[in-house]
Amino acid sequence: MKFEAPVAVTEIASIIGAELVGNTQLMATGINEIHKVTPGDISFVDFEKYYAASLNSAATIIIINKKVDCPDGKALLVLDDPFSAYVKLVKHFRPFEPATKAISDTAVIGEGTVIQPNVFIGNHVRIGRNCLIHPNVTIYDHSVIGDNVIIQAGTVIGADAFYFKKRADREVMYDKLESCGRVIIEDDVEIGAGCTIDKGVSGDTIIGRGTKFDNMIHIGHGTVVGKNCLFAAQVGIGGKALIEDNVILWGQVGVSKDLVIGKNAVVLAQSGVPSSLEGGKVYFGYPAEEARSKKKELAWIKRIPEIWEKIKHLS
Amino acid sequence: MKFEAPVAVTEIASIIGAELVGNTQLMATGINEIHKVTPGDISFVDFEKYYAASLNSAATIIIINKKVDCPDGKALLVLDDPFSAYVKLVKHFRPFEPATKAISDTAVIGEGTVIQPNVFIGNHVRIGRNCLIHPNVTIYDHSVIGDNVIIQAGTVIGADAFYFKKRADREVMYDKLESCGRVIIEDDVEIGAGCTIDKGVSGDTIIGRGTKFDNMIHIGHGTVVGKNCLFAAQVGIGGKALIEDNVILWGQVGVSKDLVIGKNAVVLAQSGVPSSLEGGKVYFGYPAEEARSKKKELAWIKRIPEIWEKIKHLS
Amino acid sequence: MKFEAPVAVTEIASIIGAELVGNTQLMATGINEIHKVTPGDISFVDFEKYYAASLNSAATIIIINKKVDCPDGKALLVLDDPFSAYVKLVKHFRPFEPATKAISDTAVIGEGTVIQPNVFIGNHVRIGRNCLIHPNVTIYDHSVIGDNVIIQAGTVIGADAFYFKKRADREVMYDKLESCGRVIIEDDVEIGAGCTIDKGVSGDTIIGRGTKFDNMIHIGHGTVVGKNCLFAAQVGIGGKALIEDNVILWGQVGVSKDLVIGKNAVVLAQSGVPSSLEGGKVYFGYPAEEARSKKKELAWIKRIPEIWEKIKHLS
Repeated sequence: MKFEAPVAVTEIASIIGAELVGNTQLMATGINEIHKVTPGDISFVDFEKYYAASLNSAATIIIINKKVDCPDGKALLVLDDPFSAYVKLVKHFRPFEPATKAISDTAVIGEGTVIQPNVFIGNHVRIGRNCLIHPNVTIYDHSVIGDNVIIQAGTVIGADAFYFKKRADREVMYDKLESCGRVIIEDDVEIGAGCTIDKGVSGDTIIGRGTKFDNMIHIGHGTVVGKNCLFAAQVGIGGKALIEDNVILWGQVGVSKDLVIGKNAVVLAQSGVPSSLEGGKVYFGYPAEEARSKKKELAWIKRIPEIWEKIKHLS
Repeated sequence: MKFEAPVAVTEIASIIGAELVGNTQLMATGINEIHKVTPGDISFVDFEKYYAASLNSAATIIIINKKVDCPDGKALLVLDDPFSAYVKLVKHFRPFEPATKAISDTAVIGEGTVIQPNVFIGNHVRIGRNCLIHPNVTIYDHSVIGDNVIIQAGTVIGADAFYFKKRADREVMYDKLESCGRVIIEDDVEIGAGCTIDKGVSGDTIIGRGTKFDNMIHIGHGTVVGKNCLFAAQVGIGGKALIEDNVILWGQVGVSKDLVIGKNAVVLAQSGVPSSLEGGKVYFGYPAEEARSKKKELAWIKRIPEIWEKIKHLS
Repeated sequence: MKFEAPVAVTEIASIIGAELVGNTQLMATGINEIHKVTPGDISFVDFEKYYAASLNSAATIIIINKKVDCPDGKALLVLDDPFSAYVKLVKHFRPFEPATKAISDTAVIGEGTVIQPNVFIGNHVRIGRNCLIHPNVTIYDHSVIGDNVIIQAGTVIGADAFYFKKRADREVMYDKLESCGRVIIEDDVEIGAGCTIDKGVSGDTIIGRGTKFDNMIHIGHGTVVGKNCLFAAQVGIGGKALIEDNVILWGQVGVSKDLVIGKNAVVLAQSGVPSSLEGGKVYFGYPAEEARSKKKELAWIKRIPEIWEKIKHLS
């Protein structure tokens, strides 16, 4: 998430009550998780094993729970609980604004777009031209929807990321990472009924141009789906996955988070994808493997009784 | 889909800009996909390998992309892109009518039926007597619902079919086949919360009398479910399947399109059904096989280490 | 379900038209299924093989389809169809009250709670303080929600139990067991978008304090989920399961009804749980087994061709 205007690092330090170390003249331009940071961003780190990655990342300002050497030209914001400080910044710069009506006055809706009854359109939403938004759809604040997009009934665009920090020492064990990312749906996309597409934690969840979703598709926070993909009903994809162009996922496929499915890959129905898949191939099963070899495996299983017959007399 | 009144084939030719070959006196009575056509229907074909099937089908008027011999008593409408012409006809004869209110004045709702708040009921919907439609349900235009039907909250009846034509040479690769079919829900059916039942492309999706659905069931376009079926939560069924009477599908079962599950079949939880199943048996696994033999297979898999022990010393 | 005030057993007998046997002075304090009964409750039994369990249960008043010996201090209500009589009592004491507005005047909503547009809140619902209920959520009558609860858009709380009695001799084969239980969501719970949590048949479905659900989670009637659990997207759990504290279920896991998953258990993505699992372990596959041994099994399957090579020359 980028700020509307740069904010002095001294102001950031004061908002979260941190000790400021390093370059005190810096201006922060946004807030981001470590894997999304660009220069000017504030990020946070609270595990020593990630310190190096965080300090060497593009982030200019790092919220950290130990006073370490500050890299040249950067600033550290030192305090006990970087996670909570980060959440505080998200809430400060992107506060939740309760709706005052079902379609916000701050939403911008393009010419020729039809909004059916019982739709919710949040604050600062942008919807392009010639779209059709069916009944009972929910579009959370800050979502961006292109031209010629169709969204079937009951779908939810931009719900919060499912992202929690475990606090083993507390009675209520999970702290929520507030999301400040968005959902971006490009032109010519169709989303089926009863889908849920979560916003990114700090970056954007993107559905690429011309992609078509059947019903009850779940897309996790920050996942990027390429152009001209086809997902059949009840597919679920975890957070921060990258699904490249022209990928086809058949019904009830499950895809884990933080992985890549390459261009033109096809994953057959009910398969599970726990790790990245090369493009251009057809996959099947759990864990998903090339369909041809997986089908051979199923045939081999059926031959176990025959193998047993051959060897049962061996001692 | 049947027209309200027959339409001259010459008018059809003029709407889509086709060359008319054969019997120019014909009256068209409806539009249908090839597997649903009845005499009087217009259908389309755009692959040479399907020409014979299409020309010999019950369709009276065929939109086709090559000037071939016209069967006696039929008419051909010849043009370059039959798919787009067919879509044009669907849009012409069943245009999308944006809603002007949440419950359309053209909907007919029977005596004793309760409609809870935040429900959407589209144009030309018919709902029978003594039904209970819970909040946030969406019922698209032209859906037909019988008597004593209960629909739990958030369910979507009659969303568009997930049916696209690939155009490999275009930047936006998928063209939508506009649906003109309906959803028909017979008497005494109960549909759980968060279900999605798509309309047929040209025919009807039907849920048979007395059938009961748990939550989050997905039913694809044109699928016909028989009487007194029970589907547990998160079952998904593709398009144009036929599920006969008294079939029981347990939770998270996935069923592919264009197949038949016979009367009284039972499919155990999480199974996947890629092809037709005979009635009267219990199935399990992916691909679903008779549960008894599939369970034996699982037991055999557990014996592989024992087999290995027996043979590991062989050279 | 407990009555607001005790009801004389003679009045119960008269409502359902039963012959009253045993102690005619009893006061009934509630209605319950056999596995939930406490003293004072009315329960029912209609299969001879369950007579003993029912008569010896804590239930004080038993609706039964045969005149058997009445245990001391209890009462029997004898008639032909105990199931229908039970349903009649549920409808009598907890009648469905059609909504007159989207947020019932009988609902109690705590200070600081934000209700977004297009939400339905039924009769007698109680919602605590500082909750955030996103758009298009449905909360059925009698649901109870604690403090600091977040419910994402499109979720359905308290839909009817999926519970039917088969009547093989009727054209409409399934009779619905009307639910009179509730959903109780404790403090600090977050429910994702598009979830469905059914009410209990007679007892309560409970989501324990601090538990977090991702999107499209289905929870069956009467299931109890412990504290600080984490369920990833598209998990489905049948009725009357007990999921203890700190259980983690990954995406698309399916859990059967009437079982226990012990404290701190983890079930990996797409696994199926047909029966109870001990706490403190990691599970995988269908049927879910300890992940370590299941992964070894997958490795063994890949060695079948090698085994075949070793033995194919044996006669």
